[in-house]
Amino acid sequence: MNSIKLALALLLAPLFFQMANGQETGQMVRLAKLVIDSTQLEAYQVILKEEIATSVKLEPGVLTLYAVAEKANPNHITILEIYSGIEAYEKHIQTPHFLKYKDGTKHMVKSLELIATIPLIPEMKIK
Amino acid sequence: MNSIKLALALLLAPLFFQMANGQETGQMVRLAKLVIDSTQLEAYQVILKEEIATSVKLEPGVLTLYAVAEKANPNHITILEIYSGIEAYEKHIQTPHFLKYKDGTKHMVKSLELIATIPLIPEMKIK
Repeated sequence: MNSIKLALALLLAPLFFQMANGQETGQMVRLAKLVIDSTQLEAYQVILKEEIATSVKLEPGVLTLYAVAEKANPNHITILEIYSGIEAYEKHIQTPHFLKYKDGTKHMVKSLELIATIPLIPEMKIK
Repeated sequence: MNSIKLALALLLAPLFFQMANGQETGQMVRLAKLVIDSTQLEAYQVILKEEIATSVKLEPGVLTLYAVAEKANPNHITILEIYSGIEAYEKHIQTPHFLKYKDGTKHMVKSLELIATIPLIPEMKIK
């Protein structure tokens, strides 16, 4: 019996090490940086906010989509995107609400940069 | 009695409008973009993580400090900083733990850019 426990511990050890290491929780964390056509900024924000609200409400794997506009350049938008995993992300980009956003804003987005990141403290929340 | 209610409503209306507008909740939301000396990145991360954990634990007005490192350029750090208000921020930068971080990392930080932002959905959390 003890040898079974030992074997199990040896099998699971790398998993626990990865979790403790804080970089392999499986989460997908990304920064999306967008520049929006200034003349369409108001319309863009309406569509983006609707897409974010729907995604966070309907998709358990969309942990946050925290969007900010720069005060000095309001058409420069950054979104901190946190998904529970790559599967949640791949599901997200096939949802009707995401496809509606993507199609509805394609003529508004002047540039889009997607930056893959590693969270320093993956368990961090917003109070 | 009704005229008092009306006067009160007229007085408070701008406040509710601002809240509904989502840009005047009093929160201070910022992106800090840092480039760290690569040879000191590991030491920097240890100090930053300690400062973040202490701030979020001890300061009710520090709502989050969500730090990420770019996968392609791990010495490029971005921090989404949310404070309950300007007072909370001003208090934060006078705390012993912040001053310790600031002093302990000044020779590690190659550049620091602070970008004032407006959150599109201020009530957004991380699940």
